[in-house]
Amino acid sequence: MLSLHAPTPDRWLAQVQERLDLLLIDHAHCEKKAAGVAMNLLFSYVEHAELARAMTEIVQEELDHFHQVRAILDRRGIRFYKLPPSRYGERLHELVSKHEPLRAVDRLLVAGLIEARSCERFGLLRDRLADRELAAFYGSLFESEARHHSTYVRLARKFQPEEVVRCRLAELAAAEAAIIVEGEAEVRMHS
Amino acid sequence: MLSLHAPTPDRWLAQVQERLDLLLIDHAHCEKKAAGVAMNLLFSYVEHAELARAMTEIVQEELDHFHQVRAILDRRGIRFYKLPPSRYGERLHELVSKHEPLRAVDRLLVAGLIEARSCERFGLLRDRLADRELAAFYGSLFESEARHHSTYVRLARKFQPEEVVRCRLAELAAAEAAIIVEGEAEVRMHS
Repeated sequence: MLSLHAPTPDRWLAQVQERLDLLLIDHAHCEKKAAGVAMNLLFSYVEHAELARAMTEIVQEELDHFHQVRAILDRRGIRFYKLPPSRYGERLHELVSKHEPLRAVDRLLVAGLIEARSCERFGLLRDRLADRELAAFYGSLFESEARHHSTYVRLARKFQPEEVVRCRLAELAAAEAAIIVEGEAEVRMHS
Repeated sequence: MLSLHAPTPDRWLAQVQERLDLLLIDHAHCEKKAAGVAMNLLFSYVEHAELARAMTEIVQEELDHFHQVRAILDRRGIRFYKLPPSRYGERLHELVSKHEPLRAVDRLLVAGLIEARSCERFGLLRDRLADRELAAFYGSLFESEARHHSTYVRLARKFQPEEVVRCRLAELAAAEAAIIVEGEAEVRMHS
């Protein structure tokens, strides 16, 4: 699905169903970070008009999602606080090349893979959560994550030929799958 | 005007009227940076619901302005490129306290002063530019900069008592005025 090399293990769904509060708090932070990633890409490649326009749309959508999650937390009386993230994003960013133009390709593909994993997990939450309000909420976010994935992969092809992007996406997706299969003890959206 | 301690010197208007291309390119970067500043504040104080909401609105408005300036550059056939900024922002940020909660107050007030100076200069450009399209454009941005100034000062009062904020704003405004009166040789929005 969406370039992913491994599905989410059942372990994860069992973990999150016991700590929906932590999942939601971490999810709000993930939306904030996704907005930050798009803003950083806009700063780095500001002269690229198509990228700047696409990043602006993603910043706005992710901040909108952030506030949607915050509203759910408020309605449920769950306090929102700073929560250390999973190591998922940090481990993916360690794979990013230091040298342009591969760096641009890697940053865009890593962002695209994170969107793909979010999309896959939102689909799981939509289909498997007993909490119907949350299931519907995750269903409503599913489409935008898939679209952001496509946007990032399309933009990567503006920096390197299609063949280079395809091979690099496969390498990064394999690394992403290994991180996901390994998992983490602490419940997070990307644990 | 809007807490500013000194008006823009006539020198600046004479400088920019000779290099409207540089002014516009730098202005696009300033809007991008203003969006970045608001995003950084959202990251630092993400638990503060009112601040997070206000920063989201500012991010969206500044990115919208960025694209408006980019469109003017495109229509005029002016190439947009990375341009080293004036030292204005950097010199202001050197004044920011390293310790909370004064750090929050200072960051908000510095952002508010930059908005105030932009507002004052957009008013000058509206009233004094012979180029009527640009004069009208700057007139259209005037109100949002004034509103952002008020938002930043209002939020600063959430972190420290009104009296502390008033004194600190006066100190920072005096420093800002000194930087502006000194000026810079290279034409920029905040030179």
